[in-house]
Amino acid sequence: MTTEPAEGLVEADTRPATSKARLRLWLRLLKATKHVEAELRERLRVDFDTTLPRFDVMAALYRAEAGLKMSELSGVLRVSNGNVTGIVDRLVNDGLIVRVPVDNDRRATTVRLTQAGREEFARMAERHESWVNELLSDVPLAEIASVAAALDRVAKHRSERETHADGE
Amino acid sequence: MTTEPAEGLVEADTRPATSKARLRLWLRLLKATKHVEAELRERLRVDFDTTLPRFDVMAALYRAEAGLKMSELSGVLRVSNGNVTGIVDRLVNDGLIVRVPVDNDRRATTVRLTQAGREEFARMAERHESWVNELLSDVPLAEIASVAAALDRVAKHRSERETHADGE
Repeated sequence: MTTEPAEGLVEADTRPATSKARLRLWLRLLKATKHVEAELRERLRVDFDTTLPRFDVMAALYRAEAGLKMSELSGVLRVSNGNVTGIVDRLVNDGLIVRVPVDNDRRATTVRLTQAGREEFARMAERHESWVNELLSDVPLAEIASVAAALDRVAKHRSERETHADGE
Repeated sequence: MTTEPAEGLVEADTRPATSKARLRLWLRLLKATKHVEAELRERLRVDFDTTLPRFDVMAALYRAEAGLKMSELSGVLRVSNGNVTGIVDRLVNDGLIVRVPVDNDRRATTVRLTQAGREEFARMAERHESWVNELLSDVPLAEIASVAAALDRVAKHRSERETHADGE
């Protein structure tokens, strides 16, 4: 789907320019993401006395009404670098989530939002969406689709190392 | 420069669609960034036995040949969440950077790369660039400029809270 030549076919003297352009794009991607993330982190702290990992846990549980296993929550949190056990403990203490034993597995526990937790998250999510809308307001709507498509290609790019794991 | 109406003028029934589109864009931005960051982190570990914060410190020092104060390095590392003192200590132990006293300030110290540090970083930077080129290879070159411009707008967007700090 790309109009570019395959890796090995790139001419030696065009490669550096291409590669520098992609490096600059990556640095901008990183900068934009860190900027928005820092803003969201700060606003969650000031307005809701909460953290991004805590918000992410509640978001995952809001979507999974039946609850999630701790291992599933860890997958969510790998992204935001939080300590899932500590976060769950505090959310339980705050009455926002409950631990539910799993019938057929004595060691497994599911956690899910309480009614208070669902209501609190709905309030946070509404504000979070309005913050994102403001922080990204300088991206014209007309451009969103093409930028999003480019980002999807980045996120879905399978590493050549994974693809050719038997190489080298 | 945007063709969109100002915040308060958005019609009530178009607002949610706009806002949802920007929220989805943000989630994709986050996903793409985390994907690339995780790949880079893993490759730096495997190929150079190093970390992203350590790479970021060396990158900042590579650009600042005269060296940087610890406080300036902390600014760099705020982004990658590292512990600047610990990282600097290990880089000094590895002979990659040196601490240099500042003439007119007994308490201040500057750190800069050693020759070995410059050579090591040059090797890492070359690989890092080729990794980024590969990970972003599905973004056609023709699209890079417009995506980069959109990202710059996001990174440069000044928060309304900052702009109207006296509001509410």
